[in-house]
Parts: sequence; structure tokens; C-alpha cells
Amino acid sequence: MSSSYFERKVEPIEVREKSISELLEEMSRTAYQGRKLGEAVEVWEAMLKEKDLTIIMGLAGSMSTAGQWKIVNWLIEKRFIDVLVSTGANVSEDIVDAMGLGYWQGTPYVNDAALVKADINRYYDVYGKESDYRQMEELMTEFMLTLKTDFAYSSMELLYLFGKWLSEKGIRSIAAVAAENNVPIFCPAISDSSYGEAFLMVKNRGHTIMLDQVKEFDQFVGIGEKTKDIGVIYIGGGVPKDFTQLIAISVSTKTMDRGVPGREGFMRKSVKEYYYPHKYAIQITTDSPQWGGLSGCTLEEAISWGKIHSQGKRVTVYCDATIALPLITHALNERVKIKRKAPDLTWLFKNIS
Amino acid sequence: MSSSYFERKVEPIEVREKSISELLEEMSRTAYQGRKLGEAVEVWEAMLKEKDLTIIMGLAGSMSTAGQWKIVNWLIEKRFIDVLVSTGANVSEDIVDAMGLGYWQGTPYVNDAALVKADINRYYDVYGKESDYRQMEELMTEFMLTLKTDFAYSSMELLYLFGKWLSEKGIRSIAAVAAENNVPIFCPAISDSSYGEAFLMVKNRGHTIMLDQVKEFDQFVGIGEKTKDIGVIYIGGGVPKDFTQLIAISVSTKTMDRGVPGREGFMRKSVKEYYYPHKYAIQITTDSPQWGGLSGCTLEEAISWGKIHSQGKRVTVYCDATIALPLITHALNERVKIKRKAPDLTWLFKNIS
Amino acid sequence: MSSSYFERKVEPIEVREKSISELLEEMSRTAYQGRKLGEAVEVWEAMLKEKDLTIIMGLAGSMSTAGQWKIVNWLIEKRFIDVLVSTGANVSEDIVDAMGLGYWQGTPYVNDAALVKADINRYYDVYGKESDYRQMEELMTEFMLTLKTDFAYSSMELLYLFGKWLSEKGIRSIAAVAAENNVPIFCPAISDSSYGEAFLMVKNRGHTIMLDQVKEFDQFVGIGEKTKDIGVIYIGGGVPKDFTQLIAISVSTKTMDRGVPGREGFMRKSVKEYYYPHKYAIQITTDSPQWGGLSGCTLEEAISWGKIHSQGKRVTVYCDATIALPLITHALNERVKIKRKAPDLTWLFKNIS
Amino acid sequence: MSSSYFERKVEPIEVREKSISELLEEMSRTAYQGRKLGEAVEVWEAMLKEKDLTIIMGLAGSMSTAGQWKIVNWLIEKRFIDVLVSTGANVSEDIVDAMGLGYWQGTPYVNDAALVKADINRYYDVYGKESDYRQMEELMTEFMLTLKTDFAYSSMELLYLFGKWLSEKGIRSIAAVAAENNVPIFCPAISDSSYGEAFLMVKNRGHTIMLDQVKEFDQFVGIGEKTKDIGVIYIGGGVPKDFTQLIAISVSTKTMDRGVPGREGFMRKSVKEYYYPHKYAIQITTDSPQWGGLSGCTLEEAISWGKIHSQGKRVTVYCDATIALPLITHALNERVKIKRKAPDLTWLFKNIS
Repeated sequence: MSSSYFERKVEPIEVREKSISELLEEMSRTAYQGRKLGEAVEVWEAMLKEKDLTIIMGLAGSMSTAGQWKIVNWLIEKRFIDVLVSTGANVSEDIVDAMGLGYWQGTPYVNDAALVKADINRYYDVYGKESDYRQMEELMTEFMLTLKTDFAYSSMELLYLFGKWLSEKGIRSIAAVAAENNVPIFCPAISDSSYGEAFLMVKNRGHTIMLDQVKEFDQFVGIGEKTKDIGVIYIGGGVPKDFTQLIAISVSTKTMDRGVPGREGFMRKSVKEYYYPHKYAIQITTDSPQWGGLSGCTLEEAISWGKIHSQGKRVTVYCDATIALPLITHALNERVKIKRKAPDLTWLFKNIS
Repeated sequence: MSSSYFERKVEPIEVREKSISELLEEMSRTAYQGRKLGEAVEVWEAMLKEKDLTIIMGLAGSMSTAGQWKIVNWLIEKRFIDVLVSTGANVSEDIVDAMGLGYWQGTPYVNDAALVKADINRYYDVYGKESDYRQMEELMTEFMLTLKTDFAYSSMELLYLFGKWLSEKGIRSIAAVAAENNVPIFCPAISDSSYGEAFLMVKNRGHTIMLDQVKEFDQFVGIGEKTKDIGVIYIGGGVPKDFTQLIAISVSTKTMDRGVPGREGFMRKSVKEYYYPHKYAIQITTDSPQWGGLSGCTLEEAISWGKIHSQGKRVTVYCDATIALPLITHALNERVKIKRKAPDLTWLFKNIS
Repeated sequence: MSSSYFERKVEPIEVREKSISELLEEMSRTAYQGRKLGEAVEVWEAMLKEKDLTIIMGLAGSMSTAGQWKIVNWLIEKRFIDVLVSTGANVSEDIVDAMGLGYWQGTPYVNDAALVKADINRYYDVYGKESDYRQMEELMTEFMLTLKTDFAYSSMELLYLFGKWLSEKGIRSIAAVAAENNVPIFCPAISDSSYGEAFLMVKNRGHTIMLDQVKEFDQFVGIGEKTKDIGVIYIGGGVPKDFTQLIAISVSTKTMDRGVPGREGFMRKSVKEYYYPHKYAIQITTDSPQWGGLSGCTLEEAISWGKIHSQGKRVTVYCDATIALPLITHALNERVKIKRKAPDLTWLFKNIS
Repeated sequence: MSSSYFERKVEPIEVREKSISELLEEMSRTAYQGRKLGEAVEVWEAMLKEKDLTIIMGLAGSMSTAGQWKIVNWLIEKRFIDVLVSTGANVSEDIVDAMGLGYWQGTPYVNDAALVKADINRYYDVYGKESDYRQMEELMTEFMLTLKTDFAYSSMELLYLFGKWLSEKGIRSIAAVAAENNVPIFCPAISDSSYGEAFLMVKNRGHTIMLDQVKEFDQFVGIGEKTKDIGVIYIGGGVPKDFTQLIAISVSTKTMDRGVPGREGFMRKSVKEYYYPHKYAIQITTDSPQWGGLSGCTLEEAISWGKIHSQGKRVTVYCDATIALPLITHALNERVKIKRKAPDLTWLFKNIS
């Protein structure tokens, strides 16, 4: 019998006064998803100690209405993430809150036909006022009227300019704080949110803007070209995860296809020889692998694709992010005291105006 | 005691020879998700009998590698759907199969580090050869080299042209069959797939194309402007669902914001007064409401947003689509014998070249 | 590259007229849970062709209120199962229906405080009248008054006698049909159901009966002693699954601990050497492995325990049983035309009175 | 528009140094399951402040192998629970650990056929040695040989005696600590665990014991008879939950059926008039309502049954218990400083020997 099966004991938790990071450290020696939650802190901490690592967060869902957006701001300000790939929801619904309007604690056991009459939008157990949403869209429209109509923006450029515009107004949403900190935000499906509404609203006023997805993807892959390694943090799956994963493959497409040798050598025995699999990966998801989709699939599956390195550190936590994200970030806050040397991404913003 | 609680009995199923549609009809009188699967056939059948209804399918995930893409083709050819909103995966990975290359039955209990060395990509329990994937991307690149570089395409336009190009080559993928049948395909996050790779590959060859998301969304909402009612079918959630739901709201944004009265009258008591909630909705999902996200949320939640009509027919089936979709479509095939009068969407393709 | 990864292609389904078993056969060549549903039919069919195999079904949940109990009766009558391990719910709530009272189609979007006032019990989207439930409990009490008070029954014995009693009254519930067909029913946690209520009701009338769990388990394991191989079908997890799995281990406990050599020889190199892992296993579940529990765990995990044979045929289908069970049984009905030679279990009923 | 929709704002969390209970308190003002986790602490705290409330914990799954059993001991010692209803797994696998043998951190990505040869039992990502398990079973057998063979025990009685026996040996498992603190443990399906194995092992040695389920249920319902109110905490679902819920109904069965009036008066307008619905309920589960089963169903569904009071405090947290249980208990430890006046249940143990 190999003794390798018996390396680390499960250590039952004893209840006593302790800090959040101590408890999570203890949970990392238990089992199931408790262990994984504890390990997530360790993997993130390891990322922060790496040199020349770009940390990309894929942020799915509607986390801003769920009281999580200031955590994202904190991550940006501490530079615990370098790049954000987000749904449109997360970087627009936070603005409602940052404008001082806000959301209300509701319940899913409610008559939605009554809510629609009361001009309330329900996000599971959160209520938002349609009028507040419209007020935010008006603000967004006001900003978009300042954009050029003869220029093809990427979502990153649009969100950078919007962030600066909001920041000047003192509306410190995620986009604003990201712009202040030179953290780029990519939003690959930006029109399925209030941004889409605002596109139509400025068009109605004769001001048609352009948003170029090819440029966006090229800029995103450019980040991968310039960094030695990548670490990824997926809060949920969806497009933010899928888009982020692709950078592992597309860097080689962008470089080698032009005849530039891969960084690991030139002759390739395998098609995937020159991929740049992510060295670190944290995934928080409530989806499951057996449905075959990307949002719930294991990080192991991504190894087969060359998207994650088989020797890297990785952890999947099957847990609602409204539980996992506050816990992990508060543990990081307690545990990581040195200032991280973050990669400089200011070159991305040079020519945006 | 109100007798209204006791209108329809649960009827236990008796095993005997019967057709697929008979069994599903019997399941609609049982409980839990079996009942819902049976009801989904009924709701879709009701859609097909409606006059002046546009049926939009939101197709998430990676259903083409899972042996489902010819079902989508059948739905397009029978015109049981009028518009497709898809992930990039679904309308690219099918091409591998349509080219005669294909996918293999695998297992999730496998060493992914061995798969990456063998140039195999794993989709849960499906294996695909990286070399086949690359061959499909080459084809895609070959097509993209035929596109104009001084024109901003929408994803719908790109996929229409690609479909026609594939169709001429006898590669009858979803895009090809859709183009043949004047069914538009929207792919709002198209770059998180092999399309993104191909964008870089043509750029490497000095052929940079443009893909405009504003134009795409405007065209999509235009479909809502021209139809009396909309029915939606969501296979999974994600961007395809979110993007499709938005049409209920954005039609009024597109029209009323210009001073055009809503179709139901002019004076509005409520912000949502002029929304055009979807009249029919079918949702097949493996996600759950309690996580607060869009993919698993109830259709009731969408009522609060004005995205689904409280008096319309709707059904959510919590089930893997590889089970639900074949069953529902085979039942429809048995049950619906008349040819549906589908809305004419050829105007969308008028100026594409 | 090993060609072994590429043995069987995924074959996309084409929609056309076909039987239920044909469609499931086609689904077995697709992916994800659709493939698994198709494979479940194949594994069950293989069980039915085996010689000297005892088929045990573990039936969890509340499937009888969901219109599934006549399917269980059909399985018993066809002898597609030989032993039933059930929750108390499944073999009591069916009686309400068999008495001609029944259940009603309801909705989970309801005010439960109104239901309690209306004396309605809700089972997700099924309503049952409390008065009907009470009527069934009265019947159960009437039966229990016929039992001896100086005898320790096992749940199997109690349910056999109850089944005969019901059968004579023409109430053809699962217990009745099982008794008619000499199929034993074990119900290890019988008191968490109306049986528990009835225990108190007869005690109130001075008639205290005894139900011995040690005897029950010994009888159950005795079935394993007498059969060459076991095949298991789990509809859900819980106690019915756990109890059934244990037979693989306990047969050796029951025999070898007495100095009787295991059937495969005597000298054991490993503690698990003499276990009798189940040769076939089908599992229908809506739970997931990552939560660490028994109901969602893979059949692979059971291999480690010696509960399932690593070389046997096994399949897990992650799907609501109200979908999977009707489909699988109707496919079996179409496909299996010969009469199975089922193991004789009449010895179990010899001394029950 | 009613203002009642807008009573409490969602308050975004700001990352800073704070205690576990402060963070959970902040999470109670966010959304989704994070809010629910925070609310669970509040509901439990409210229970601890109630007078004449009996707190029953239903403990499902295999939490002891997952490093959670010392938390249960702490809850018993602090008397934050008064009665435990458990699976056999939870009150046997802890003994392996308490004996100093233990469990190991493993991985679910492992070859189970290799594990079975290495005599390892896998619990998702935990490994246990079969030889350790057998050693624990030997201990259990040694104890059972001290039991009478002419006496029908309830599981509660057996576990009380076992607990005392273990306590004397210094093996401070859950059963031992419960016995020390006069906290009864009910284990309604005790034989689907090593207890079942041990029943056979003592029988092999000519020592057949009896375990009476009718007596067990009667004793359990007796607890309900003597208390004013009940609060329940469900860690997972299954039999522990179902059995516990039943007490709400069975108290009236046990009393009124004998002609004793219900505590709230005598004349009943409704069948459920005299039920004693639980006043407080906390449910931690990873199951979901849509599958129709008991483990995932809402606490609202239990209201319809008269099992939970519509005006009581209740909260369901959809989360792995290895995350939720440590967090909630550590928050309680910080927050609840006064000693609770727990109900005296010593009468239950009077006649056990």
C-alpha cells in the first residue's frame, strides 16, 4: 500500500475565538467545499507573491446588486487583480448604488405581477426601482453623447472613459475605481445590459457610436503577450470565464501565426505545445460539471485544452459567491500585509480619448 | 375551502406501448420536472399556432459537440424557430462535424494532462481533436479573408455571409441552414470562441475586420419592433438568454424614446407600461434560482422586469438539454403536422454583402 | 497518440418518427446526461439477461405522489426488480391514490399559510388533502390492529402482511402488488412517514407493536447470501441507497465472521477481498458529487468501498426521476420481450403470519 | 406604490478588519445565500434566547469524516442543541477519529479501483483506512456484547449506553459527549452504517440484540409533548430532517387521539388545528426545491403541512455545510455570551441500563 494516500490528515475544527483567516486556514484541513474555500485563500495568496504575474478576474452574474461591488473596488485598489472581465450588469448596476440610489432587501416569495406594476425589478431576493435604473441609464446616455461617432471603441476603451467621467463626478463605481487605478475592464457582451439600452438612446438622439469586438479581443490578448504568467479568478462562469480562458490559446495564435516563435522554443511536437496555460486558477461556481457546460466544468477539463497548467495551483469552490467572495477577501486582508508589485498596464490606456 | 386547489388530478403513468408525444402528454399530468417537460411541448405547440409571433431561441453552452446541432437545423428548416441567439461555440463546433471530422465519446474520469499531450480537447465526456478544431478555424479564416475591412459587420451579418459561404461548399452547419432559410443568428459574445481566434488569424495576415455590437443590438431590437408578439425558448441561460430578454424592454426604448407612442397607447402610468413582455417562454436549465443569477432564475422573476407577460404561457424545465431537447422536438414532430406561417425576416438580409 | 480515445463517435440526432427506445438508443451516442439516460436502458437490459442476478431497487423521495407508483408496480409485475428498498413515503402515499382519493396538480408559487388553513399538504407542485391522508392512516391503523403485540416484526414482514391485507381489499398499492408477486419491500426508516403516525395510533388504542431493525437488516443481508450477483437501481439516494449498498459488505460480515470462507476463496490479502461488489448499478439522481454526500456521489466512489465492481456495468444519470423513470421503463417495455427468470425469494415469506 | 417593498437597503460590504460574527452580520444585509448565512446566525441566536424551547438538530450526511464532529460536540456541551437526530455515519465515523486513527485529505480525481486494492474507503475527497473502520467496528461489537438480548432498545437508548461506555474509555465521540450532557441521539435508520455491521457481528457470536423503531418514535414524540416550543436546525435533509419534522404532527396524534385536548384549545375547525408547528427553523442544504424531494424543499412547503409555523423565524441556506456550519458556530461563539437555560431531558435516561 502506497503511503502517499496518507500525507495530510483531516483535522476536525474546534470552536474557539479566531480570526477569519485562521478559520479558513483550519477549513483548508477539513473536507468537501469547506476545504476548497480555505484553499482558495492560499492559492490567491500565492498569486500575490509571484513575480511577473497578471491576475485576471472573470466576474459573472449580477454581483453588484448583491452587495459585492465594493469588494471588487477593494481588490482593484489593493491591486489584488489587474484586469477585470465582467458582465455588463456588474459594471452598470453598481452605478445605481454609487449614485446614492441603491437596492432593497426583498424576497423571492413574492407576486411578480405586483412588482411589475410597482415598477420594481427583482434580482432573486433584491428589489431595484425601475426609476433608479432609468436614472442610471440617463447618466450613461449623457456620457455616451461625449463619445466620438467616427471611432470604433473597444468595450475596454468605453469603460475606461466612462470610469474617468464617473470618477470626476465622484461616482465611485467599479469602472471609476478601475480607471483611477489603471485596471482595464473588458465586457465582451456589453449590450445585454443597460449599456445596450444606452446605445439605442444615443442613437435616437442621432449619435450612433461603434463598439468593435475584434479590437477588444486583440487588446485583451495583447495583455497575455506582455506577461510571463497569468493567474485567473472566476467568480461564476459564463462569458467572463470563457473569454478569459481563451487568452491561454490566443496569445500563441497572435504571435506564432506570424512566424514568431513561442516563448518555450520553436519546434512544436504538438499543436498545443506553444499555448500559455494559466499558472494559477480559482473558480467559485454554483454550477456542476455533469451538465457539460463551461460554467460548471472542472479546472481539470481546462487542462486538456491547454488553458490551465497541469502543474499550476488551482482550486474550484462550489459555493455561492455572496458567501465565498467576502470570506476570501477578508482573509486576504488579514493575511497579506505587503504591497504587491503589480504589472503596469498603463500602455493600454495611452491612446484612448 | 376553495375547490380551486383541486382542478386537475395527478394521473399515475401506466407503462404500455405509446409514442413519444403520448408519453410526454402523460408526463404533463404527473409532477415535478416530468410534468414540466410535458408542458414544454404544449407551450411550444401553442406558439406554433399563434399568428404574428416571432419565436426566438437562445442557445447557450456547447450543444453542438453534444450531438444536438442537427436538431437545431431541423427546427430552422421546419421554421419552429425564427431567430437564433447563440454562443460562438454552438455555431462553430458544429462545423467540425459538418466537415466530416466529428467528435468522440469520452469520459470525464480521465487524466487531462494526458489529453493535452494527445492534442485532445475535452467537453465533459466528449473528445475533440485539436487538429480538427484548427482545420475548422482555417476554414473560418479563409472565409473571413473574403470580408471587407472597411465595413462594420454585426455578428448577424457575419454569420449570414458565413452561412451562405458554407452552404455553397456543402457544409450544412447551423449557420448554413439558417442562411438558406433566412433565419438570422445573433452571437453577442462571438469572440469567446474560434471566431475570436479567426479574428486574430486574419489580422495576422493584414486583414483586420470590424464587428460592431451597437449595430448588432439595434438590428436585434428591430425584429421586436416589427412583430406583434414574441415567444422565447431558452436552452440554457447565459448571454443568449439575457440578450433575448432585453428585446422586451428595448423595443420601447428604441421607439418611445423617439416620441413614438407605445403600441398599447400613449399616456403611461408606469415606467414599464410600454414594455413588450414576451407572450410565451420555455426555459430548459440545469441552474437553480437560489444562486441569484440569470441562468437559473424563474420566468416569474422576468415578469417583474416586464420581460415576460404575467398572462402568457410559460414553463421552466430543470433538466439537461441533451435529454429535454431531443424529447421535446420529437414530440413536436409527431404532434404538429400543419405548416406554420412564419414571420418574414428577409428584410434583415437585404443589404448584406 | 493512442487511438483508444477515438473509438466511438458522437452521432448527432436527426429528428424523425421513431419509438421511445430508438430515441434513447440514439441518445446513448450523444453526450452529457442524454447519453447516460440512453445507457441506463442498456445497463438495465443487460441485468435482465443475466442469470442468477438479484435486482434491488432503492426508491427514495416521494415518487408516489408524483405519479410514478404504477411504474413501480409494473416493474414488480414484470419482475424487472426483485427487491424494493423504499422510503415510507413511497409505500404509503400511493395507498391514498389506490384508495381512489388521489392528488392534485398544484404549483410551488403558492401561499403555504393559505394551504395549511385549507388542510392541504404540498409536495412541491402537488397538493394532497390532509383528510385523505388521515383516511389512509386510519386504514393503516386498522391493519396494524391485526398484528401481534408479542412479536418483533421487520419492516419487510410488516409490509408483506400489509400488502396481502390491501390486496384482499382490492387496494392495489405497491405493497399489495409486491406481496402478490413475492417481492420483498424493506423500509429501514419506516417511522418517518404515516407508518410512524399509525404506530402511535395503535399504541393509543392499547395495541403496541414492535419493529425490529436488527432482524430487518439480517433478512436483507440474507438475500445477498443466496444470490450469485446483485444489480442495483437507485432512484434517488438517501437511506434506500445507503442500505442497499451495504449488502455488498455485510454478506461477508455475515458469513466470514463465522469462519465461513468467502465465495472467492479463503486467504485474504486485503480486508475487502471477500466483499461482493454489485455487478450492475444504475443511479438516477439530482444531487451532485461535490457536496461529499452519499446521494450525489459517483458510482466510482462506491468502487473504493468494495460496494460496486470496477469491471461491472454502471451508469449514473443526473436527472429528475419523474423524467428518467418513465422514459427508461417505456424503452424497456418496447425492447425486452422475453420473460425474465427471476430469483425465487418465497423463502423470505415462509414464516410470516 | 407601497413603500413596504423598500424597508431595508442592501448594504455593500467594505473589506476591513472585522470578526467572523461582524462579517456574517454584514452579509445578512447583502443578498442571495450570503444574506441567508448571516440570517442563520440571527435565527439561532433568537432560539437561544427563547424560554421553554427544545432545539433539535437533524444531522445528515457524513459530516464526521469531513472534520465537523467536534463542532457538534461543542454545540452539545454549550447546549446550543438539545436533541440530535443523526445518520448512523455521523455517530460512528467520528469514533475512528476519537480513537486516534483518523482520516486523510484525498482527492476525488483518483482511480477508485486502485483505492479498493489499497483498502481505502473514499468519502469524496477524504480517505479512510478500511482497517481503521474495522477496528472501530470491533469496538462497537465489544460494546454490543454488553447489551441485553431480551430487551428491545430504541436507537436513543443504544446510543446513550454506547456513549457512556465510550466516555468511560476516554473516547470522546459525539455519542460520548451527548451522554455526558444528557443530550439524546436518535438514529432512525441506524443499520445503514457500521452499526448494521456490528448487529451481524454480535449475532454471529450468538448475541442477537433487538432495536425497536416503534419505541424509538414514541420516545422522540414524547419530547415534543413536554416542551412548549420546538426549534429545528437541519444540516442536510434525508431521514434526520423528515423524522424531526414529523414531531410537529405526531404530538397531536399521540395526545389528541387519546382524547386529550390540544394545547391551544379543544374544538378544531381544521385537521391541522392542533399541530405544533416548529417555531424556529434553520436549514443548511445543497439540494434544490425543483426536484420535489424533502431534502431540498423550502421551509415554506413545510408550513403547508403544519410542520413549521408561518409566523416563526426560519431561514434556508443553500450551501455546503462544511462551509456554513463552522462559520455559523464561530459567529455564535463570539456573539452569545450568556449561558442558555436548556430543557431538562434527563427523564429520558431514567430507565436505561
